[in-house]
Amino acid sequence: MNIVDIILDKRYGRTLTDEQIKFFVKGVTDRSIPDYQTSALLMAIVLNGMNEREMTTLTLEMAASGEQNDLSFVGDVTVDKHSTGGVGDKITPLVMALSSSFGVRTVKLTGRGLGFTGGTVDKFSSIEGFNIDIPKADFPRLVNETGMVISGQTPDLAPADKILYALRDVTGTVSSIPLIASSIMSKKLAGGADAIVLDVTTGSGAFMKTFEESRQIADAMIRIGDRAGRKTIAVITDMDQPMGRYCGNVLEMKEVYDTLNGRGAQDVVEVATTIAAKMIKLAGKNGGLSDEDLLNECKARLKDGRALAEFIKLIKSQGGNVGEDGPVYTAEPVKVFDVKAEDSGFVFSMKTNELGHCSVALGAGRITKDDVIDLGAGIRFMKKKGDPVRYGDVLCSLYVGKNSPLLSNEKAISEIADRVYKAYEINTSRPLSIRPVIDVLGDK
Amino acid sequence: MNIVDIILDKRYGRTLTDEQIKFFVKGVTDRSIPDYQTSALLMAIVLNGMNEREMTTLTLEMAASGEQNDLSFVGDVTVDKHSTGGVGDKITPLVMALSSSFGVRTVKLTGRGLGFTGGTVDKFSSIEGFNIDIPKADFPRLVNETGMVISGQTPDLAPADKILYALRDVTGTVSSIPLIASSIMSKKLAGGADAIVLDVTTGSGAFMKTFEESRQIADAMIRIGDRAGRKTIAVITDMDQPMGRYCGNVLEMKEVYDTLNGRGAQDVVEVATTIAAKMIKLAGKNGGLSDEDLLNECKARLKDGRALAEFIKLIKSQGGNVGEDGPVYTAEPVKVFDVKAEDSGFVFSMKTNELGHCSVALGAGRITKDDVIDLGAGIRFMKKKGDPVRYGDVLCSLYVGKNSPLLSNEKAISEIADRVYKAYEINTSRPLSIRPVIDVLGDK
Repeated sequence: MNIVDIILDKRYGRTLTDEQIKFFVKGVTDRSIPDYQTSALLMAIVLNGMNEREMTTLTLEMAASGEQNDLSFVGDVTVDKHSTGGVGDKITPLVMALSSSFGVRTVKLTGRGLGFTGGTVDKFSSIEGFNIDIPKADFPRLVNETGMVISGQTPDLAPADKILYALRDVTGTVSSIPLIASSIMSKKLAGGADAIVLDVTTGSGAFMKTFEESRQIADAMIRIGDRAGRKTIAVITDMDQPMGRYCGNVLEMKEVYDTLNGRGAQDVVEVATTIAAKMIKLAGKNGGLSDEDLLNECKARLKDGRALAEFIKLIKSQGGNVGEDGPVYTAEPVKVFDVKAEDSGFVFSMKTNELGHCSVALGAGRITKDDVIDLGAGIRFMKKKGDPVRYGDVLCSLYVGKNSPLLSNEKAISEIADRVYKAYEINTSRPLSIRPVIDVLGDK
Repeated sequence: MNIVDIILDKRYGRTLTDEQIKFFVKGVTDRSIPDYQTSALLMAIVLNGMNEREMTTLTLEMAASGEQNDLSFVGDVTVDKHSTGGVGDKITPLVMALSSSFGVRTVKLTGRGLGFTGGTVDKFSSIEGFNIDIPKADFPRLVNETGMVISGQTPDLAPADKILYALRDVTGTVSSIPLIASSIMSKKLAGGADAIVLDVTTGSGAFMKTFEESRQIADAMIRIGDRAGRKTIAVITDMDQPMGRYCGNVLEMKEVYDTLNGRGAQDVVEVATTIAAKMIKLAGKNGGLSDEDLLNECKARLKDGRALAEFIKLIKSQGGNVGEDGPVYTAEPVKVFDVKAEDSGFVFSMKTNELGHCSVALGAGRITKDDVIDLGAGIRFMKKKGDPVRYGDVLCSLYVGKNSPLLSNEKAISEIADRVYKAYEINTSRPLSIRPVIDVLGDK
């Protein structure tokens, strides 16, 4: 077998055999296939596609290219949750708390943020004392104690995917249904969970800009999961505006706490309860409740303190400080600017990725891997899509941490404020109806 | 401008601007664009194509990537001839002699053979004393003296094409109309001739296996030539069987001599006179003859010794020995095997590239660049497509040079003979009509 023949087969639109895909992934992992051949094959895959069987084989081979987690110590069905990313996405702590309240045991491996989407590791790091770097050896003890563990100390899962992703990034081959689906699913399969709930975001703040694209990728991931023997459900959620009322690390963790105290924004509640309900169902912990009743029960538990109790338990189990008013944070957000409407009408659209970039510019995220984050920085959104605005209304407020160098840099703040303002589109007409949860796929 | 955006544009089927193509070729030439990005773009070009303007710009930029020949010393219209390769292709010396007899002045830069197609350099090298490595500085003197010069000492024409070709070879991106057409034409444009006649071969011994593919590539090259201001005519010729009666270096030069003495095989005469006539016409040396009369005049000059005289003049001017019976050769072909028909019927098809490989196996060609050629080796074809055969008839004879190590290796010879026999298909029915010249394109 040789790689040129494999490239030619895909170039001419033929289906690759399992042996060919295995040969390719092995050659990528052990570096015996040079990058120029890999990138030619990736482009041929992008343009000529892959069928379900090819995608699944690619996923399984990438999952098998490195370490694979063994979660058998959990002694129960494990459910993983994955989001394709967005701005203000604070769903992970909420669904962990909610599902734990139903007895679902969760091992959550999570990453740092890069670019305009935030990372769950950073959000939890904003809680004083919280240890996010839990070594694998401590997982069984913590899961036994609290039913949950969250760790940023991820092993080298799916190294073939890491190599391919780096190459795709510089060869115009990122956007591709089979390549995106197999990339995400290879890490999920190697992660070891029995079942997977995917939060597939869609819109201006998401990687997939259109519903149709999101639906196709969701569908591909579900089919891969099913073929690989992992029950998979995908929830397609709106990311055409930031999620909830805040973006930024401390600001979002405070919003999580508010949500667990029954004061959640409607979109956050809707998305979190929908995803939690699917996780609970896949874990077999719905206790005979219908889908509708389970969803309502989730909503109730955001109000009655049961989810909050789980969250506090998680924070404390990993060393986090919790005071009377909730977790204690390592940074203090200071408001530095109110972005005001210069027009009246309705918020018609929000350039969500640009708002994410503005939040990064305030200090809330990293542009390169080594940047240090200002955990106090971020944006509070007072006006969101569909809201009526009058001239002079505050659309949103910009925050930085109390030690931020931006505090003495009015020029920089006002430049960011300009960008934020331009990311809002105010129009005389209202946008079409906004649904935080757009669709649920794979829930059989 | 950055290469990822260029890749993405082509990936999404957009047309590249001249600036983008210039940036790409420059980056390939100075090695600032890594191979993995180049190969991704090549695959996107293969699958999404290029329009006429893009192909022309790519060609011109590759032609400008290195040295460009200045043929102004010729003081007249110069015409280049290029063949896309084949087995037994001995057209170059014939068309040089013919066109020279009409006063066309020719500077022919030519290459060594590699793989199953022979090289003109090797063929001329089989003449004793002939110096094929004429330095550029001597071209004007030789063209003045004899009107012709042929040299294997090619400068570094179109280095960008050389880099791209090496990469295409290992990334499944060789076969592509815009890439093949721009590769050939970039070298022709850099070669400096005012007009170009392309011999586009088609069939089992050619790079393009079907007429349709050959026609498309011919058409693309004509359009590039026209846009680049070089009159270009393409002659599509049959390479579904070896050309003429012989393949192998000395054997083919002897066939050239026979042809110039009026004893040429019909296909060789047909192709050589058609191409020569187009060269003569493009050079404006047809002296008012109609196309038909010019073709007949060419045929006449193969018989009346006028073309032969030019050929002898060329050989002598570059130091070649010519005796009473024509050129003196550096190797002597020795017949080692007669391949005989084991069946009766008609020669229905010939696997021409396999016959080329068999000729290489006998010693007539190179597999790698450093192989030494046995100039005496080759094959004489007694039976060709459409010929009736009876059991026991000799289909063809195998030759090696008189010093070949194969002379004492019966086993190797008989293995090659087996392969040669299998390359012949004998059938009860005759193949459809065979036309050596299938079409002429671009002759306005």
